[in-house]
Amino acid sequence: MLRAVDVIQGKRDGRELTPEEIAFFVDGYTKGAIPDYQASALTMATFFKGMTRAETVALTEAMMNSGEVLDLSELPGPKADKHSTGGVGDKTSLVLAPLVAACGVYVPMISGRGLGHTGGTLDKLEAIPGFRVNLDLGEFRAVLRKAHLGLIGQTPEIAPADRKLYALRDVTASVESLPLISASIMSKKMAEGIEALVLDVKTGDGAFMQKYEDSKALAETMVAIGRGMGKKVTALITDMDQPLGLAAGNGLETIECIEALRGEGPKDMVDLSVELAAHMLQLTAVETTLDAARGRIRATLASGAGLETFRQVIELQGGDPRVCDDTGRLPQARERFELLAESAGVVGRIACRSVGHACMLLGGGRETVDSRIDPAVGVVLRKKVGERVAKGESLATVHANDRKRLDDAVQRLRTAFEIGETAPVPRPLIHTVLE
Amino acid sequence: MLRAVDVIQGKRDGRELTPEEIAFFVDGYTKGAIPDYQASALTMATFFKGMTRAETVALTEAMMNSGEVLDLSELPGPKADKHSTGGVGDKTSLVLAPLVAACGVYVPMISGRGLGHTGGTLDKLEAIPGFRVNLDLGEFRAVLRKAHLGLIGQTPEIAPADRKLYALRDVTASVESLPLISASIMSKKMAEGIEALVLDVKTGDGAFMQKYEDSKALAETMVAIGRGMGKKVTALITDMDQPLGLAAGNGLETIECIEALRGEGPKDMVDLSVELAAHMLQLTAVETTLDAARGRIRATLASGAGLETFRQVIELQGGDPRVCDDTGRLPQARERFELLAESAGVVGRIACRSVGHACMLLGGGRETVDSRIDPAVGVVLRKKVGERVAKGESLATVHANDRKRLDDAVQRLRTAFEIGETAPVPRPLIHTVLE
Repeated sequence: MLRAVDVIQGKRDGRELTPEEIAFFVDGYTKGAIPDYQASALTMATFFKGMTRAETVALTEAMMNSGEVLDLSELPGPKADKHSTGGVGDKTSLVLAPLVAACGVYVPMISGRGLGHTGGTLDKLEAIPGFRVNLDLGEFRAVLRKAHLGLIGQTPEIAPADRKLYALRDVTASVESLPLISASIMSKKMAEGIEALVLDVKTGDGAFMQKYEDSKALAETMVAIGRGMGKKVTALITDMDQPLGLAAGNGLETIECIEALRGEGPKDMVDLSVELAAHMLQLTAVETTLDAARGRIRATLASGAGLETFRQVIELQGGDPRVCDDTGRLPQARERFELLAESAGVVGRIACRSVGHACMLLGGGRETVDSRIDPAVGVVLRKKVGERVAKGESLATVHANDRKRLDDAVQRLRTAFEIGETAPVPRPLIHTVLE
Repeated sequence: MLRAVDVIQGKRDGRELTPEEIAFFVDGYTKGAIPDYQASALTMATFFKGMTRAETVALTEAMMNSGEVLDLSELPGPKADKHSTGGVGDKTSLVLAPLVAACGVYVPMISGRGLGHTGGTLDKLEAIPGFRVNLDLGEFRAVLRKAHLGLIGQTPEIAPADRKLYALRDVTASVESLPLISASIMSKKMAEGIEALVLDVKTGDGAFMQKYEDSKALAETMVAIGRGMGKKVTALITDMDQPLGLAAGNGLETIECIEALRGEGPKDMVDLSVELAAHMLQLTAVETTLDAARGRIRATLASGAGLETFRQVIELQGGDPRVCDDTGRLPQARERFELLAESAGVVGRIACRSVGHACMLLGGGRETVDSRIDPAVGVVLRKKVGERVAKGESLATVHANDRKRLDDAVQRLRTAFEIGETAPVPRPLIHTVLE
């Protein structure tokens, strides 16, 4: 008979756990038969001893199976999603999801909220007046059927083991474990009823994993999990050493996404959105080559069909669709402040994490999961890395609702910019594609 | 402000914890402010990262201070105790404690029960009809004052943190950690109100630590803890590769102790008891040299004063003192079986653990802490390692109360003896003394 203590001891001593042992433990823990103190001993032992690929796949499957796994087989067409590990100004979901949906792929996107210096898709959506991210799974299916796209938050039915385990790891110092991080992300995505997943794993100063090697290890682990579970998965390791696009801050980012869907978005953000979207079309075999997929996405963008899909989803999820025509209907901050360059030169660096922290200081980010956030505040960059700037020219516009917070944020933001004599060696937008 | 999660993370990342952090954690855990799941994460992290001497001392002090620390300063004389890590036939406590007490040293001995293949002092005492090991601390003090000796079990007041933590480690696979084992033992001994402690750390097949190097590490750690807490501590690393003395089994061992106090004990057991007792006299400065202390103990033994002290303690603790004159008053098993040598030769080995397991099979040991034990059963060796045996001569007498159990035990015991052509290289009774 399986015993929790033997599973813990096996992991402690470096033995590979069997899928049965892992399923027994996760199932027992979810149902309360295995107590927190045994689960925290196992996660700490896992922190030290790691997990093989087979164990990590088994853990992901067990966590996925702890709750509802969506069956979207009644929807007549391919289903795909994208997941990003998060960063500053990372807003591609709101651009690529409508574009891919407009190409006939169902996109059942279950997203998270921002924490710390990073933003979250749900917060950007909630900047739209009336938009409901807390649909139940029945409502979600209905929206998805009509618009090919639904955008909601985590529901209690999806991977409850992950929620319980994450909360435990958070208070027992066992968060920073590659297999546990990977399984946590993938257990939720694999429950979405999709056949294909594109992973956007960020690397650089503003990313969860700042070192390229760590980002690569995370990407490889998640790809292995997804493929081990029979899904088509591609991972792109992309740059997060400066903010993506120009806007950082929830409402400001939503505005930038609507502008992008109108064909007026900043180049890096649009290029990355198109690239990720193209991989989704290729993985679902909507297009057979990546080049054809890129062309299809660019054409869909140019036609305005992406914006129409976004408008439809907003309306179906209770939001005010008029924001698509008039972004002034999104929350506006009372004060604007221009951060001026103190010398002429070339922007050598924009410390990405500091921009995210400036947004937090403005009230636009969460210090803890319970924090309330202000959707109107944030930063809009006027210059990106490699661009020339004259003395006294604006580097960024700060949107604030509070004088004290503005001062703190400006102070932080000022330290983020480095102005030099010569242009830095440019970092690629996309470092690696794991196909 | 101290937070449990930061203490766990500090240990996880190999930082030396401060005495304040350790005291905060142990105190919080004992009172229930820190939950089991954080404690099990810390013990698992400790399993992997170990503890420095300073941390181990701080942990021992914190566990000791979680409960009552006996103050025996009202007793006019030195106080000392001995602790053994346990083995098979390890019965020196019942011999040396009365001898040391008869020399004027107070011996407040708080002991444990047997588990697995090893015996425990409390079980041997309870073989004496009426003997109460569960005195409260008030009764204990009264007995101690009168007889210079008291022999009881763990009370709820002593080191409750250790009891709680040990139970947790047992179900979370974090028992086998040298600093945690050492702190567990020493927190209870250091609460006894003694100024000197002699440690008998066993090594060999029947010991908790079978390898000499492991036994040495345990001994060194415990000595360092005791000295770090200002006590006089000597550790002897002694042999447990064959049973100590001849008897294994609770009542049979008590009989052997009474015989030893009469001057009729087996040499190895008596020699070790005298040696441990002599170190107690030396540490408490009752005698200035070890040789003088040995002489004093031998003289006390020869005078019968040790047996008189034992008789007095038995009476004070509710037992039948007549067992000292008539060991037939101790429980007797219904069946006796002689294990005969199948060939002539020299006893090359007596697998110590197998003898302990044979006692368990007879019903004389505990498989779990809740098992009931039969005080009458056990094994009495007729031959020890290095002795010659003729074909058909008895190697051991098995005392049993149940035919089926007897068969199982004999089968196990038969495998324990190795008979060879030549005498093996003798192992020392005492491997090392850490003074």
